[in-house]
Amino acid sequence: MKLATLKTAQRDGQLIIVNRALSHFVAVPHIAPTLQAALDNWAAAAPQLHAAARELESANPEQAQRFDACACKAPLPRAYQWLDGSAYLHHVELVRKARGAEMPAALLTDPLMYQGGSDALLGPCDAAPFTSEEHGIDLEAEVAVVTDDVPLGVTPAQAAAHVKLIVIVNDWSLRNLVPGELAKGFGFLQSKPATSFSAIAATPDELGEAWRDGKLHLPLVSHINGELLGRPDAGTDMNFSFFELIAHAARTRKLGAGTILGSGTVANRDPERGCSCLAERRTLEVLKYGAARTPWLKFGDRVRIEMLAAGGANIFAALDQQVVHSRADL
Amino acid sequence: MKLATLKTAQRDGQLIIVNRALSHFVAVPHIAPTLQAALDNWAAAAPQLHAAARELESANPEQAQRFDACACKAPLPRAYQWLDGSAYLHHVELVRKARGAEMPAALLTDPLMYQGGSDALLGPCDAAPFTSEEHGIDLEAEVAVVTDDVPLGVTPAQAAAHVKLIVIVNDWSLRNLVPGELAKGFGFLQSKPATSFSAIAATPDELGEAWRDGKLHLPLVSHINGELLGRPDAGTDMNFSFFELIAHAARTRKLGAGTILGSGTVANRDPERGCSCLAERRTLEVLKYGAARTPWLKFGDRVRIEMLAAGGANIFAALDQQVVHSRADL
Repeated sequence: MKLATLKTAQRDGQLIIVNRALSHFVAVPHIAPTLQAALDNWAAAAPQLHAAARELESANPEQAQRFDACACKAPLPRAYQWLDGSAYLHHVELVRKARGAEMPAALLTDPLMYQGGSDALLGPCDAAPFTSEEHGIDLEAEVAVVTDDVPLGVTPAQAAAHVKLIVIVNDWSLRNLVPGELAKGFGFLQSKPATSFSAIAATPDELGEAWRDGKLHLPLVSHINGELLGRPDAGTDMNFSFFELIAHAARTRKLGAGTILGSGTVANRDPERGCSCLAERRTLEVLKYGAARTPWLKFGDRVRIEMLAAGGANIFAALDQQVVHSRADL
Repeated sequence: MKLATLKTAQRDGQLIIVNRALSHFVAVPHIAPTLQAALDNWAAAAPQLHAAARELESANPEQAQRFDACACKAPLPRAYQWLDGSAYLHHVELVRKARGAEMPAALLTDPLMYQGGSDALLGPCDAAPFTSEEHGIDLEAEVAVVTDDVPLGVTPAQAAAHVKLIVIVNDWSLRNLVPGELAKGFGFLQSKPATSFSAIAATPDELGEAWRDGKLHLPLVSHINGELLGRPDAGTDMNFSFFELIAHAARTRKLGAGTILGSGTVANRDPERGCSCLAERRTLEVLKYGAARTPWLKFGDRVRIEMLAAGGANIFAALDQQVVHSRADL
């Protein structure tokens, strides 16, 4: 089934179920008012939500409302936890190369993961606000999973059952603030403003065979101002599966229901697949031409991220956002 | 006024108002069911909560219920954001010395701050679960503030109005996992399991003259198994005020209502004041005796943290927790 969160006057919006064709939706306040409420009580809520989704699929469309992804917030407009791994080591290697940093061998077995801000997550068509182009505004197209309650010390095999929903993500980054924050060792803070999410959060069964071994085997397609940036396959060159990433996060503590865990920027070693962020493209340009040619994002630029099924269907509805200047003078 | 969150079957508990003497409380479901709900709508909720607090203060105690801090969860049992600064540079200097790391000069002007896990926060008497003593279990006694919605780019002067509540904190740390995570640059994850909070969240006016210039000028007292570890003054040697820490966090993004922002481990340069964590004490032992003499915490140890007013009143009720072995085998 496909879930989304409609924009309302409430901070957490309203949970809706969307049909497979992404044409219609129904609200389900009798099951759960918000997605967090459903996740808090998933064992009871999920069967009811699945039943409502089946009914929607077979219903006369006139009985449902027209779906518009841009009328949606992030599935969790604010979350209790947003963790982001960096599972595509090809990306890590390239981005480190760009800032002249080494790739430690330990990263092959010990995943990189940071705790992200989750107090305000952006919806798929929300303007993405930044204070300065000088910060080096970049996209990072990713896949993420949403869990229910994950016990402390879960193994990768046990983690599989805790993946309840899958989303796609733009983990906006301010590249010029990253080196200073990494040097401090305390992780990203100013360099990672609010992250954006697809309207649709899909249950794993919606992905069919494409969801296997804790990886999503489909291309993640990114465009900037209508020009293709890349379409790497999210199931290829992913060094740690989502199950391994969950186990890593839960090594010393349990994870609360509604934890969102990201894959890190999707990156394939095959250069024909392009990139999911400008940092990689710029690094490749440096290696090829001696200098970066593609600028960071500018105010007014549009970034579109989507994942297409084998038949071309847009699984999560596209993220399509404009980079805007948000003045800091209140 | 003093607020707390009673343990109930609900994940977010029930908001209560506690009297100054910490002897009695009333629930206020007609104002807000939870503290997060009150913070989401603080401008409207605060006057009603203050009125109810005044009424409780003058009421016949028999009309209220007996207060027990151990019947409370953390004020926000889960939060959308937990940021922790490191504002006492004396602590940073000592802890870095202990692991043979330098203290970069930039830290004098650019605060250290990390994004902590906030999906499951511990109450003041909850058992504190850890999987292994080998991880180097340590306390970190801190002060923290809770904000309402903070606009992007707020200045320190503007930040003052956004401090709505003050709490005390034990930011448990796994010292032996810290160096590896710091070396990765992505911040603390496995080395910072669930953080513990005082039952009481007090509005700044409850602190009187002790709350000034964005600092809380009172001693924070820590005991391990009944033995005094330290009682440094939280207003002394704090290199960045809470207002400066809020401005740092909000430089590139707004902060959502209910953001908790910590001071970092309270530490005074005066050695007579003792310590707020074992890492500091052990470093001082290394410097004095050539080796650390105090072990990290063991299963069964009790850690008590409290803040006493000039007259001896226990402002936030004590955190009094036992370190317990939580097996990871589910």
